This record gives sequence, structure tokens and C-alpha cells, in this order.
Amino acid sequence: MPQLRKDPVTHEWVVIATERGKRPSDFGGSSEDASQKPAHSEKCPFCIGNESMTPPEVLAYRDAGTRPDTEGWWVRVVSNKFPALAIEGELNRQGVGMYDYMNGVGAHEVIIETTEHNRCIATISREQATEVFWAARQRIIDLSQDERFKYVLLFRNHGKVAGASLEHPHSQLIALPMVPKDISEEMRGVQRFYDYHERCIYCDMIRQEQNFGRRIVEENDHFIAFEPFAPKFPFETWVMPKEHKATLTEEDAERMKELATIVQNVLRRIGKCLNYPPYNYTLHTAPVNLERDPNPYFHYHFEIMPRLTIAAGFEMGTGVYINVTSPEDAALHLREVDLAAENYTSTATAMH
Amino acid sequence: MPQLRKDPVTHEWVVIATERGKRPSDFGGSSEDASQKPAHSEKCPFCIGNESMTPPEVLAYRDAGTRPDTEGWWVRVVSNKFPALAIEGELNRQGVGMYDYMNGVGAHEVIIETTEHNRCIATISREQATEVFWAARQRIIDLSQDERFKYVLLFRNHGKVAGASLEHPHSQLIALPMVPKDISEEMRGVQRFYDYHERCIYCDMIRQEQNFGRRIVEENDHFIAFEPFAPKFPFETWVMPKEHKATLTEEDAERMKELATIVQNVLRRIGKCLNYPPYNYTLHTAPVNLERDPNPYFHYHFEIMPRLTIAAGFEMGTGVYINVTSPEDAALHLREVDLAAENYTSTATAMH
Repeated sequence: MPQLRKDPVTHEWVVIATERGKRPSDFGGSSEDASQKPAHSEKCPFCIGNESMTPPEVLAYRDAGTRPDTEGWWVRVVSNKFPALAIEGELNRQGVGMYDYMNGVGAHEVIIETTEHNRCIATISREQATEVFWAARQRIIDLSQDERFKYVLLFRNHGKVAGASLEHPHSQLIALPMVPKDISEEMRGVQRFYDYHERCIYCDMIRQEQNFGRRIVEENDHFIAFEPFAPKFPFETWVMPKEHKATLTEEDAERMKELATIVQNVLRRIGKCLNYPPYNYTLHTAPVNLERDPNPYFHYHFEIMPRLTIAAGFEMGTGVYINVTSPEDAALHLREVDLAAENYTSTATAMH
Repeated sequence: MPQLRKDPVTHEWVVIATERGKRPSDFGGSSEDASQKPAHSEKCPFCIGNESMTPPEVLAYRDAGTRPDTEGWWVRVVSNKFPALAIEGELNRQGVGMYDYMNGVGAHEVIIETTEHNRCIATISREQATEVFWAARQRIIDLSQDERFKYVLLFRNHGKVAGASLEHPHSQLIALPMVPKDISEEMRGVQRFYDYHERCIYCDMIRQEQNFGRRIVEENDHFIAFEPFAPKFPFETWVMPKEHKATLTEEDAERMKELATIVQNVLRRIGKCLNYPPYNYTLHTAPVNLERDPNPYFHYHFEIMPRLTIAAGFEMGTGVYINVTSPEDAALHLREVDLAAENYTSTATAMH
């Protein structure tokens, strides 16, 4: 019998229909493992030596004495060459009849995660991954100073099917002049819970998941990775700090290393279990520059979503997702992956 | 400068970023034109002669004297062989800690739109398309009698990229035990407008679109096709009755023919303009079995969404869509299509 499950934060129902289900190997997603490709590509704007092919860098971790927009970096952040939003200008809100619009003011940046064309966030060293998240943290802090912005999104598209137009490992940041729909729904949910219980709903959720156990993928001292109770996608996995923290920017260098480790491990488990599928991940973090301080009730986390199935007419017409894999099964498969037997060079040293 | 536009019903913002934009031919979607394929496929469960390969029919328009689940039909409705929801059983709502769930009770049916394997809803005769919508109407009326159901969705997935797992022309019906998220948001929007203005927001929208003109694709006596002000997808097109009607089930046979014509014409325009892309369409219609009668303020319509771009991390993390084609440009391109020069056999007679 299929089951309808409700997300306790957003109140969205999903259909868990495992009768239509598949074993991990049945999803047969084409492999997005880039390790067979060359480490450097002449034409790639994110490869070393091609720094002039991108807009000027807004941040780079680079060797002392090297100049901006030249070689010598190991993490580099640049404006998107084809930005979805423009950094200059005022919103200039207007109406025409029943319709409302404003200028598309915002920021759109790219974090180039490594110099090596044929790596990915899961296969770079732990130190390098930590620096990638550290760069994201630094840019989020900076963009949050701009009072025109209400939300800064960090996200990653891995593989063509997941919307990546360039192969070279990168993630993206978009700063928006409004709290976007999904986050304002999430805010409403966490606030509603907090106003009644005077507790953070995600803190409660972590305790319930730890008691139940069957949806947990991995834990370390400060972070937990689990399959949510009502996942929209097969093998959707959330990574959360166990302690209450509203934003990624609260993390220090030591904890960031633990965060990078668990995100890398989850991606490696997904890769090995599901033949390196395309995926997206997004950071859910508290909005900025709001009147009411969201920090007591928002709890930041990553949502990792492998692209194994296609959202079609049903999902587009209802907002309800059909998920063919139960989160309990998904967690079991992901836990079973032997990371030690993984052929990633996870001990490789960073370039610096 | 990109623009942020707000949907007046759902209050969702979309980014219209035409600087990243493309001409229709640049989308380069692989052609989903099936006309080169054979008219009959031995292995297809929806082809004539293979009626025993599907669950028993729940409705069929067939020649007098022919038996159910044999040849002689021209439109046939069967239960989905791999249903997302189960027709038998009670909801049995339960909680476990902070989580809520219930049995996945609902209906999942398939409307086989023609006996011919290599047609599609756009290329069958007008009479045949009218009968397809008539069959949908009949099934929606029937499913709405079941008081466990609150919403009946009609939708169509065309092409692999749009989630169609079988080639043979078909659309689907799903009856749900709750009003799904997107429809309840839409309900909230239309109700809010109605409670203040004492008018239907979609009736107002039609008038504003007619005055403006630039987003209209086509009109006939009783229906209008236009690009919405804040479309999520390039070339997203809505088809609406000009007169206030809450549900498809209110239409009579004469008007249904006009509806079929305009839906077919829009799909033909999209096909010709964009090299027969995969697409989804969904029917937005008033929920059923509610306490408050939604008929005064809900206005049914079709939303047709070509699959030209990929929703990625940004959309998944925010619910905000980036659309690279303005609806004004899209309408212009679609209006310019010369349907008379189209090589569809639109004058072909139905089988009956």
C-alpha cells in the first residue's frame, strides 16, 4: 500500500510508492563520474591558466604574492558570466494593472572548487572541501551586508541532467532581494512550531531520528546525515548540525572540516550506491536583514537530491511528489556502502 | 536588466532573465515527433489488439456490439498498471512523534487517446481530441462522487524528458484524498482576491490580457490561450474559458470541441516553433467535496509547459524559477506559426 507522508515543516504531502520501486542499481542513471576525463581542459574557463575567461574574481584563496585573476589559486570565486540577476540598481517596484514586478537585482557568483577539471566536491581532499565551504561562508557574510538582499542561496548542480552547463567542479551563490517562496514556507513552518513549543523543530527532529535510527546515514561529533521522513526524491539526504545553528556562517574552521567530511561521505555513498548519478544540493539557511531575528528557530542544513527520476505532469500540477524509494530503504543502502573500499583518493593532499 | 515578476494568484516570484535568452531554435530540444514511427506496435499495451495487457477498462468509447477489453474502441480508459495510489482502503491517518502519515488512497487512471501508436493529442483529428477531453470529463465526474477524494488531476506527459514511460498517446488522471499543495495555494490566492473584489481573478486577468494583447497566442469564441505574466518556463501557455467556469465538467459537447481545437492549436504552434519538444500539461480545476463551494472564485484552465530547460539547484532550493524567455516574446513567436502550413493531417477523420 502506498503511503502519504507529510513534511512537518512545510506541511507538504509526498507519496511513498515503493510498489513502483526499484533497487538502487535499477535507476540506471548515467555515470557522472568525471575521473576518467583529463585534469586540465584548454577551453574550460574555470581551469588554471584561463583566469581571463571569467569575470574578475571577488575572492580567491591563492599563494602569497600571486596576482588576482592569474594562476596560483586553489579556490576562486567569480561573478557568473551570464548572471540571472544584476548586482547594480534599485528594485524599483511597480505595478501594471493586477501585476507586480521589480528589477532583477541580486548577485550571482560561482565558486570554482578546485583547479582540477576532473574532480568533484566528493573527490577533492577533505582540506580542499573545507576551504570550499569556508569560501562560501565568507561570501555569504559579505553578501549579507548588502541590505537589499534578504536571502543568500548556496547550491550545486552536478552533471548535465542536474543542470550543470560546465563540467569543471563548481558551486553557485545567488543573493535575492526577497525571501524566496520555499524558504518563506519553511520559515512559516519552523516559526509556527517555535511559537507553540518554544523549541526548534529541527532540533526535535534530530532527536526523533536518533531514537528511531533507521533513517540515519552517518553521524560524526557535530553533524548528522539522514533521510527525511517525507522525502520528495529517492535517496534525498539532509545534513544538519546537531547543535542549534541558524546559519552556516556561525561555523568555525574546526567544525567546518567535520561538515565537509560528512557532505563528502554522503556524496561518495550516493555515488557508489547509485552509479555516480547527477545531483543537486542546496543550503537552507536563515534569511538575512529581516525585522524579526530568525536565529532562534531556523536551523541550517544541506539538502542533497540525486536526480534519479523525472518530475512530470503530476508533480507540476500538484506540487506533490511521488517517491519510489522509502527513506528507510535508502538509508539502509547508503549505510551499507563501504567507504574504505571506495576508489576515491580521499587521502590526496590539497594543492597547498 | 533581468526582471522579477509576481504571479498574482500564487504570489510566486519568477526571474525573467532574457539576457541569458535564446531564440526558439536555440533550445534545440530533441524532437518528440512520433509521426515517423509505425502506427502499430506489437509490444505496446495501449495498441489495438493488446487490450489484455492492461488492467480492465473503466470506460471506453467503442463500436456498438464490441465487448470490453477487446478491439473496437477509439478512446479507452484503464487503471494504471503501476498505480501511485491504491483505490481500495481507508486513509487511516496516524502520527508517530512529530510525523504524520496516512494510507496512499486514490485513483490512478490512463486515458488512451487513440488506437494509433504514432499520433499525439495534437495530431489526432479534432473530433477525436474532443472525445478524449469528453472521456476525461466523464471520469472526473465519476471520481468526484467518491467522497474520499478532494481533487482530481488530469495531466499529460509527452516525451521521455517530460516523464512519459510509454510512447503511445495517453494522458492520466489521479484522484487525491487531499487538496494538493499547489492547488491549495492557488485556492488561497483566488479566494483572497474574491473576498475583497467580489470578482474572479482569472476573469479579470483575461480582460487585462485582452487589453494588452501582446501575450495572447490565440482566441476563439469561448476560449483564450495566452502566456502568463509570470511564467516559470519558456513558452508556458495557459488555456482558459473566457466565461467564468470552475471546472471542466461544466462544459457541453459543443464547447468541448472549441476547447480541443485551441489546445491542439497551441500544441501545434509549440511543436512547430520549438522542434516538437517534450512537454507536460496539467488541468487546474476546482477541488471537490469541500465544505466551502469553490465555484464562484475558481476558474479552470490548462497549463502547458514545454520542457526546454532544466530546473536545477536554484529552483529546488528556492521555488523561484529562472525563465530565459519573456512571455511577450514567446507569444509573438507562437502567434507567427502558420498552422495552415503545418504538415499535420489536421483534417483527418476520426476512426468513427
